Amino acid sequence: MARLVLKFGGTSVADMERIRNVALRVKREVDAGHEVAVVVSAMSGVTNQLVAWVTEACRLHDAREYDTVVASGEQVTAGLLALALQNLGVNARSWLGWQIPVMTDDTHGKARIEDIDTRVLIERMAQGQVAVVAGFQGLGSDKRITTLGRGGSDTSAVALAAALKAERCDIFTDVDGVYTTDPRIVAKARKLDKITYEEMLEMASQGAKVLQTRSVELAMKYRVRTQVLSSFEDKPGTLVVDEDEIVEKEIVSGIAYNRDEAKITLQSVADRPGVAAAIFGPLTDAAINVDMIVQNVSAEGHTDITFTVAKADLDRAVAALRGKQKELGFKALLPDPGVVKVSVIGVGMRSHAGVAQLMFKTLAEKGINIQVITTSEIKVSVLVAEEYTELALRALHTAYGLDAA
Amino acid sequence: MARLVLKFGGTSVADMERIRNVALRVKREVDAGHEVAVVVSAMSGVTNQLVAWVTEACRLHDAREYDTVVASGEQVTAGLLALALQNLGVNARSWLGWQIPVMTDDTHGKARIEDIDTRVLIERMAQGQVAVVAGFQGLGSDKRITTLGRGGSDTSAVALAAALKAERCDIFTDVDGVYTTDPRIVAKARKLDKITYEEMLEMASQGAKVLQTRSVELAMKYRVRTQVLSSFEDKPGTLVVDEDEIVEKEIVSGIAYNRDEAKITLQSVADRPGVAAAIFGPLTDAAINVDMIVQNVSAEGHTDITFTVAKADLDRAVAALRGKQKELGFKALLPDPGVVKVSVIGVGMRSHAGVAQLMFKTLAEKGINIQVITTSEIKVSVLVAEEYTELALRALHTAYGLDAA
Repeated sequence: MARLVLKFGGTSVADMERIRNVALRVKREVDAGHEVAVVVSAMSGVTNQLVAWVTEACRLHDAREYDTVVASGEQVTAGLLALALQNLGVNARSWLGWQIPVMTDDTHGKARIEDIDTRVLIERMAQGQVAVVAGFQGLGSDKRITTLGRGGSDTSAVALAAALKAERCDIFTDVDGVYTTDPRIVAKARKLDKITYEEMLEMASQGAKVLQTRSVELAMKYRVRTQVLSSFEDKPGTLVVDEDEIVEKEIVSGIAYNRDEAKITLQSVADRPGVAAAIFGPLTDAAINVDMIVQNVSAEGHTDITFTVAKADLDRAVAALRGKQKELGFKALLPDPGVVKVSVIGVGMRSHAGVAQLMFKTLAEKGINIQVITTSEIKVSVLVAEEYTELALRALHTAYGLDAA
Repeated sequence: MARLVLKFGGTSVADMERIRNVALRVKREVDAGHEVAVVVSAMSGVTNQLVAWVTEACRLHDAREYDTVVASGEQVTAGLLALALQNLGVNARSWLGWQIPVMTDDTHGKARIEDIDTRVLIERMAQGQVAVVAGFQGLGSDKRITTLGRGGSDTSAVALAAALKAERCDIFTDVDGVYTTDPRIVAKARKLDKITYEEMLEMASQGAKVLQTRSVELAMKYRVRTQVLSSFEDKPGTLVVDEDEIVEKEIVSGIAYNRDEAKITLQSVADRPGVAAAIFGPLTDAAINVDMIVQNVSAEGHTDITFTVAKADLDRAVAALRGKQKELGFKALLPDPGVVKVSVIGVGMRSHAGVAQLMFKTLAEKGINIQVITTSEIKVSVLVAEEYTELALRALHTAYGLDAA
């Protein structure tokens, strides 16, 4: 007998037939004697409709009202799934964020969970009642509904699993696990049986969309064994676990890519102390995040600086910098949205040399020019022209021995 | 400067364009210097969709989950209207039932309001903030969402107006007031400027659908001046007020009709003490409400009993009684769904004789047979064959001098 948290995303609860299927899936765990909490998203499409209404009602919307409106989607699914479970004879009740409560900070629209009061849930679960929890939502200290940002139901599920000290958190979704890379691009991509928290975190933050980054951070922090699996097929998915649980570590576990970044180069910037701060200050003021940054070696007192921002922020970033051209003293500003960031990820890098070198060599052999390089302990990322995305992914997948047999 | 409660029904907030119109209407009252609370229903169609999902999820549904799901409709509208008001520069915030809180009993699905904590609302309204309140919902002592039953937003509005000691409660709807009778049937029907609480209560409970009966009871109990008016036309509606406010009282104010009842006659029932209890006991056990009842004078130790039930309950009522035919000892059971109840209503009846007589004479002249008669202090109701509905309404409307000039 174990305590489990199961999370079902929007496509898994898209209509009543699918909700009934979810109920059957949950019932199996109950019948096996487990204590079960279920976290649900809104029916797919519902959140988009609600967000569209909010945007139509008020262009600069009050995030507290946004949260009130948008959180209703998960409320509906939670009630419906509780009913579908009761219809199968399973004892179940719905829980909204404010009822548990799931306490968050007051950053409406992207709140962070601070505390989950699990006393009553644990009591009820011990009595055999399934807790059906509305994901994505919490209660601020202002006593108003908060939401956790897009994909927030993953975070709700992992945070609940941590608070309940659950044995496992199963994230049911429309893919059957975490792959070595995007199988829509690389036909030979393999599903991973296990992946470490650290690698999953890099995969998520480098562009793999299978889990929300924040949820992986939480899983890592609280050591929540998290499984990503399909709600439409009955087979094991990918377990995100502690490094110790993985006996045979690959050097490289996966290759992620992200097309949502754009590159900006400032040519011939005066190379003096404080120039970097002067450049990135205006971007911070405009709430624009900068990802990769490289600065060339100085020549004759001038240098080039290249960095990336989210593609959606490119125009605003260019405007913010052009407004300060005199002050910053650069000669030219070259924006380029036509780039992709490709990242090779693996905890094995810590103990193996030559991982980065293999990446550079492989790309060079295909004639792909590397524009920017950044590295971390378990990751090497390069920026290349977007048109090489598929070619780069396939070549690297083969080079690191990841191809399926 | 007055304190006002405005209530907008489902058709008045059916889409974003209409919600923006409601915001403009509310702004006018704010600009006039009034303190305003607004109560909203779900966008029309939304509640039906939610109820359909609940029914699909579980045939014998848990009313607590029903409430959780269905209350989301008003939550969405409240948030959107608060945003639409902010978009016009009006200070506004949404309030859900559990946030105020609107405390109710635990009769989920048709809860009764027990208390509304208005302290914070009054404070905010005094500071110029419009309170946008989700109608139809409250909080049970079980800390779960309750709903007030169909049309419950009217009740929310009147109860809030009573708790806030508001000067007036305006119920905006898709008709422009209360009419002497249904204008779709009687072209000469007149809109009433004023009607007493007692008359409105009879009109509502005898079939006029313009206000929920429970809301009129509350308005009467707490003497809330309540106006029914159109959200699509800019003109005064009908004021529901105390009798003292109406100088020129009509003898008859309106004529209501109800096609939702069915008649059952039990022929030749043994006329002995306890027989009525024996007949209506099984119906009570089956939660079937009985409305009109007549018992004929006994002949040779036997009598006929006729009564009406809701048309939707007819089959169940017949089954319940046939199962007890031996015990009850009636000869025949005659069900008849083809009836209509027509009621003539007016506080003037208290002081004027001959009101009932005029009704009987008018119907007789048109050759309409009266099957059952019941009376109260301010109402005479008759049951006639349904096919005479239009004829009876028009003849009575003329006979009581209600026709528009």
